[in-house]
Amino acid sequence: MPDKVTMAHGAGGEVMMDLVRRVILSRLGDTLPDRWSSDVPLSALEDSAVVGDIVFTTDAHTVQPLFFHGGDIGSLSVAGTVNDLAVMGAAPVALSLALVLEEGLPMADLERAIDSVARTAREAGVGVVTGDTKVVERGGVAGMVTCTSGFGLRHPLLDPNLEAVAVHREPPRWPTDAGVREGDAIIVSGSIGDHGAAVLTSRRGFGFERSVASDIAPLNHLIARALGAGGVVAMKDPTRGGVANALNEWAGKSGVGIMLDEEAIPVRDEVRAVCDLLGIDPLEVGNEGKVLIAVVPDRAEDVLEAIGGDPHGAMAAIIGRADASFEGVVLETRVGGRRYVDQPRGDPVPRIC
Amino acid sequence: MPDKVTMAHGAGGEVMMDLVRRVILSRLGDTLPDRWSSDVPLSALEDSAVVGDIVFTTDAHTVQPLFFHGGDIGSLSVAGTVNDLAVMGAAPVALSLALVLEEGLPMADLERAIDSVARTAREAGVGVVTGDTKVVERGGVAGMVTCTSGFGLRHPLLDPNLEAVAVHREPPRWPTDAGVREGDAIIVSGSIGDHGAAVLTSRRGFGFERSVASDIAPLNHLIARALGAGGVVAMKDPTRGGVANALNEWAGKSGVGIMLDEEAIPVRDEVRAVCDLLGIDPLEVGNEGKVLIAVVPDRAEDVLEAIGGDPHGAMAAIIGRADASFEGVVLETRVGGRRYVDQPRGDPVPRIC
Repeated sequence: MPDKVTMAHGAGGEVMMDLVRRVILSRLGDTLPDRWSSDVPLSALEDSAVVGDIVFTTDAHTVQPLFFHGGDIGSLSVAGTVNDLAVMGAAPVALSLALVLEEGLPMADLERAIDSVARTAREAGVGVVTGDTKVVERGGVAGMVTCTSGFGLRHPLLDPNLEAVAVHREPPRWPTDAGVREGDAIIVSGSIGDHGAAVLTSRRGFGFERSVASDIAPLNHLIARALGAGGVVAMKDPTRGGVANALNEWAGKSGVGIMLDEEAIPVRDEVRAVCDLLGIDPLEVGNEGKVLIAVVPDRAEDVLEAIGGDPHGAMAAIIGRADASFEGVVLETRVGGRRYVDQPRGDPVPRIC
Repeated sequence: MPDKVTMAHGAGGEVMMDLVRRVILSRLGDTLPDRWSSDVPLSALEDSAVVGDIVFTTDAHTVQPLFFHGGDIGSLSVAGTVNDLAVMGAAPVALSLALVLEEGLPMADLERAIDSVARTAREAGVGVVTGDTKVVERGGVAGMVTCTSGFGLRHPLLDPNLEAVAVHREPPRWPTDAGVREGDAIIVSGSIGDHGAAVLTSRRGFGFERSVASDIAPLNHLIARALGAGGVVAMKDPTRGGVANALNEWAGKSGVGIMLDEEAIPVRDEVRAVCDLLGIDPLEVGNEGKVLIAVVPDRAEDVLEAIGGDPHGAMAAIIGRADASFEGVVLETRVGGRRYVDQPRGDPVPRIC
């Protein structure tokens, strides 16, 4: 472990997970008193924790610039936290919003960001019920940093959903990263890489500034449709480190391989063009309005159809299958070859969330 | 309202409350869907919100320096959030910890801060169950910024405590800022100003570096003692803006005056010396291990005795009374004069929490 923090420690890949395990989990993993039961403790390193029947999560947001095509730090804050709750099978209830503002920030920028928080919270149907405001001197942060936390309750459709899993095997109590098994279908709710590409082009141009829009969206309604269709065993929002990171976490924690079909993975032409220009892989680029869903085989088409009816699920597709005959994530390419999709060490695009 | 954010907007006084009301509450105050009941909504502007029977709060921490005499950003993060839950009458259950780290931060500093988080969480008996880690480039933050959120459940001693209030009047359902009435005793759990004075001397010296220690402490066990004694109607931890700010919030929201006895207010000699040197009022200096408790008259001595038995309550004192014959907060000085203690506009010490 290096003796100083590096950018890769915040990039959502292998280097960050090493820091989290060695510095944080080792110290905090056993702080919850025994009197509270926890199906999903800190040590599970999931998107949310579960204590009793309360699902709880937090995110800090350091995105630069604060405003970009298709979203801003306000919509990002709400959607990121709502999605972390929803992928754990929770109905999100309430959020907190802590702001660290830079002295001199135009009041109009703050108002615009809070308008965006309000709009996204209304779309999700969650309340922003508590907050905190700190101000630091010029240069202390770049405009603002936010932190949103949230809690939710076990979704009423989660248990009926798990009944459809019980036909195949003992269902998990929550749809965690460890729930994927041989034969499960891997669904993505839409095109990948949009968010990271949008932030990057907002920052650096390349002529794509207005053609690539972030996908930021709260996905709790889409996820409720998936649970309604039944058979969902795992869900994950592929943020930092993208689909490559999320699926490697599933493969590692579930102990199965995942075979992806490149042809089936939706990538917008303009996102592909940005990625080609920069030499980065859309599979490693972060998303903020997409969810990966693992479903027992006989329900995959039902779940696909259900989420296809949601405004955020129009491009949903089955992109792969779990396969216990190998480990890790493998991509079957358009030209018929195969390559491993490794867990990214860092992230090709810093400060996208 | 100015067109840019100023340091005073984060200082916990009148200017911050104006920003919170006009920019944040106006946009987010009605986001909680009607299907959730909320006894203490965002609009109450309390230390925590209450949704159903879940108490929820958040704090961002920007303290400089990160380590100071008597505490650090780690202990501050945990104690601040635990105390915000406890003063609302909750038993704290679990915390989240989001970190924004500066590239180049010594790993040893991070480890030291997380050790402190763990130690303080164990003292409080709360679990740190979820988190997030972001890294920003050098100069993006000063070392680190943290954000801790937490939730708790209605304390089992809260209802028995309120039974003692019912002898006098209809008790509030939660001990909010609006619950103080004529004749109630105002108790402080110990000496005031220690935290702000410690951070300030750690930053600037003055020869007091090792004599003034922060009071950072989780107060949930002390507060449980107070609830056990019965008759508590309001509790507040006097952080930014100090006792002056906290009592003005009580006076304003409860619609009573508060008369303070200067002689009775515990201030350590070394803290008074620092405040005299800088020309600041200990009543306006932030605390991180103190609680103000308003109690119905016939239980004041019982509560005082109960918290005096806690390690953090040794210097507890009754420092005043609520008095409906005037408005605001008035100090009866040592020499027999009287002066208004106004709500601070800002804070004499920036970045203490």
